[in-house]
Amino acid sequence: MADSTATPCDIMLFGALGNLARRKLIPAFYQLDRAGLLAEGSRILALARRNLDIAAVHRQLLGALEEFVNPEEFDRSAAEGFLQRVDYQILDFNNTEDFQVLNTWRDGARNELIVYMACPPAMYGVIGRNLHAVSCCTERTRVVVEKPIGHDLESSRVINDELGAIYKESQLFRIDHYLGKETVQNLIALRFANNLFASQWDQNHISHVEITVAESVGIEGRWGYFDKAGQVRDMIQNHMLQLLCLIAMDPPSDLSADSIRDEKVKVLKALRKVTPDMMANYVVRGQYTAGTSTGVLVPGYLEEEGANKRSETETFVALKVEIDNWRWSGVPFYIRTGKRLPEKLSQIIIHFKPAPHYIFDPDQRHLANNKLIIRLEPDEGMSLRILTKDQGLHKGMRLRQGPLELTFSETFDAGRIPDAYERLLWEVMKGNQYLFVRRDEVEHAWRWVDRIIQNWNEGGEPPKRYAAGTWGPVASIAMITRDGRSWYEDA
Amino acid sequence: MADSTATPCDIMLFGALGNLARRKLIPAFYQLDRAGLLAEGSRILALARRNLDIAAVHRQLLGALEEFVNPEEFDRSAAEGFLQRVDYQILDFNNTEDFQVLNTWRDGARNELIVYMACPPAMYGVIGRNLHAVSCCTERTRVVVEKPIGHDLESSRVINDELGAIYKESQLFRIDHYLGKETVQNLIALRFANNLFASQWDQNHISHVEITVAESVGIEGRWGYFDKAGQVRDMIQNHMLQLLCLIAMDPPSDLSADSIRDEKVKVLKALRKVTPDMMANYVVRGQYTAGTSTGVLVPGYLEEEGANKRSETETFVALKVEIDNWRWSGVPFYIRTGKRLPEKLSQIIIHFKPAPHYIFDPDQRHLANNKLIIRLEPDEGMSLRILTKDQGLHKGMRLRQGPLELTFSETFDAGRIPDAYERLLWEVMKGNQYLFVRRDEVEHAWRWVDRIIQNWNEGGEPPKRYAAGTWGPVASIAMITRDGRSWYEDA
Repeated sequence: MADSTATPCDIMLFGALGNLARRKLIPAFYQLDRAGLLAEGSRILALARRNLDIAAVHRQLLGALEEFVNPEEFDRSAAEGFLQRVDYQILDFNNTEDFQVLNTWRDGARNELIVYMACPPAMYGVIGRNLHAVSCCTERTRVVVEKPIGHDLESSRVINDELGAIYKESQLFRIDHYLGKETVQNLIALRFANNLFASQWDQNHISHVEITVAESVGIEGRWGYFDKAGQVRDMIQNHMLQLLCLIAMDPPSDLSADSIRDEKVKVLKALRKVTPDMMANYVVRGQYTAGTSTGVLVPGYLEEEGANKRSETETFVALKVEIDNWRWSGVPFYIRTGKRLPEKLSQIIIHFKPAPHYIFDPDQRHLANNKLIIRLEPDEGMSLRILTKDQGLHKGMRLRQGPLELTFSETFDAGRIPDAYERLLWEVMKGNQYLFVRRDEVEHAWRWVDRIIQNWNEGGEPPKRYAAGTWGPVASIAMITRDGRSWYEDA
Repeated sequence: MADSTATPCDIMLFGALGNLARRKLIPAFYQLDRAGLLAEGSRILALARRNLDIAAVHRQLLGALEEFVNPEEFDRSAAEGFLQRVDYQILDFNNTEDFQVLNTWRDGARNELIVYMACPPAMYGVIGRNLHAVSCCTERTRVVVEKPIGHDLESSRVINDELGAIYKESQLFRIDHYLGKETVQNLIALRFANNLFASQWDQNHISHVEITVAESVGIEGRWGYFDKAGQVRDMIQNHMLQLLCLIAMDPPSDLSADSIRDEKVKVLKALRKVTPDMMANYVVRGQYTAGTSTGVLVPGYLEEEGANKRSETETFVALKVEIDNWRWSGVPFYIRTGKRLPEKLSQIIIHFKPAPHYIFDPDQRHLANNKLIIRLEPDEGMSLRILTKDQGLHKGMRLRQGPLELTFSETFDAGRIPDAYERLLWEVMKGNQYLFVRRDEVEHAWRWVDRIIQNWNEGGEPPKRYAAGTWGPVASIAMITRDGRSWYEDA
């Protein structure tokens, strides 16, 4: 699958002046261009409602590059060169007539057509239908859409039905930007190219798995938006279940998109449904109160600007997830995610079972299991915890847990790790869907999390409070402690 | 087994002015003293035939410390302080009367008595009998002896019988200094504290094992001595079979000396006997000719000073060893050792089997097995070869073999790695035999190598020639190539 060429593309970027485009997409296209990965003749058509001339748009996008590209990687002449590929077209996304102009822009070009809908999901259907009405798309056109695909199973079906009425599943690239992270992709290599791990990746050898995605920030001015979602919809339904699937899936027979996605769907279907009587032991819902976050006093969730004081929306959730299949029976996946936690940290920890017999000093028995730590944030990398003899004569045969470290940025001369969006855009240009989410994945994930939200709505225990700057409610610690375990803390 | 105290000891060092004592033992005692590990009141009695006064002996030993202790670790006042513990006694090892003086020195001391015989094995019996005759030893006395214990099974029995007539096996500490190396000891922690390895340490998961002990030096002026032995007696019978045993042994039920040694003996008994018809495919005998060694033109073995031009003694040997037991059936151990090879290098490589199915690029299939590399020399440490995704967008899902490295000297703040002799002397002072070789280990090892030497003597193919500075005869490469494998070379 090494391939350094993509065919020339025409990219229609809907919402080109919006937040996502400015922060992520335009910088990613710039980086791809700088790396020589935008094929000769590729063009980007920025689309938005604002009446601006091309010079003004270029100025805006140049400003976005200056702001969001790493200063060491920003080169003004490269940026200006890149912007030569970018046209602008004012467009009312609701007005079918307006879409005729897109055919003019295409002008019979044989470039692959990519439609990137960087706009609210409610627009996906409208845009798709209008493109269809003016016959701009073909069966080869690739359509990229962003989360959230709905806020529950029903609403996701509406969106997917609208898209599905116009496009085949093989044309749809649903983004989950976690899938574009180097380390996440590396999971596939790690699991399936290394028999050392592949042969131990099951309930015989693994005792439990932890996944933590912690944010130190709070709501960042988006209170109203976030309050309608909550942490389960915002993080669990997509990112964290995707990580869980990549860890838990059976080995695919090949690396094709559907082989991988078939296996992920099998995991989602095998997740144990969370019944009301499981809520007490398997689910912790939290909401932060005022506290000290990274050294600064910050308000509680209910004191944020624009807050509804009676909101029961969760800003933290910890789940104990059971996967009822042959590989994982009896191996809980403890997952937690929250805002206003002590640090920005994303990591997966595979806890291997200890050896059946233990012959070293009894007081060191607690050390005696291997761990594989997969860091997504900060410093993408992996670390394998191996027990060795402690050095020094007087230590005798004392054990020591030494890390075998592999930090990507340090170890590899390749240097720079591409941003997730660069990788995802690159895969879109090459037409590879394996890093994109299939409709049935979205729906199975919603079906599973909907049940948790429904239990909250019906059962009605309010969220547990936790002070900003702590690791969530004590109930989260209690949940894992009941099983004789603890959340991993780096020594 | 952490223990920072040893009881006070009286050490009688026979051969105290000899080569081994000057290079290794006196520096090791100095280091132990400097580290505070020689218990208060411990004394050393240097014994030799030469008529010197104590001041002259101290001057000689100080010279030895200056010469053989790492300059950064040499401290004159510490050295002089250490020498205050050292007495000298002229002694004719053959003269029983002379030994009475040892009782005078002991003078009823209740220190543990350690007798270190740093002299030719032919003297072991004489010294032991003389000590016994003057009632100097008790059943608690520990007796340390050096290799070679004989030059074949018969002669080793003579030496062991002489020692056994006076001492119990539990009093005898047979040195193989390889067992004192940090990495060798670490093998025990690595194998038995890490289920990640423990559960894969068998023919289901390992395809083959390599052990290389390469020396770049030649005979170093010891032609006559070496020519009577050869590489099999000098390296295979002891060091390399010990390494092989530590890699191959079944897990002991505990860390006691006899539990470990019982398991090692089981391996030695399971080594497939090398029959005459196996010699062509399982054994390569080599002898170096003139060549370029580390940049310098050097003579061949038969051109060295004092050489018998018709010698067929091997300076290189490569063996394919089969272990006929449940754990290792079908897993060859390829071992090789030689003089005048390109570099000084000791390493063990565990080649794990590849995963049963392979889903990455076909041209990278050769990468797809994990290796654990255990380095003894140079830079003691371990490296686990893990396949990861190659970084960079255009690499797609290309694999890369990245090392997870653990170099002891770099990773651990403990810093200095003790010399093998320091560790072994420390274990003698504590009375731990687990790093010393039991009589039955010596004898089973001789029984196995005697057969190879006998086949050479009877079958009579002369050694294959190899140029100094190369990795031995091409037959060594052919031996492993026939199995579709190759000797590991670091990339």
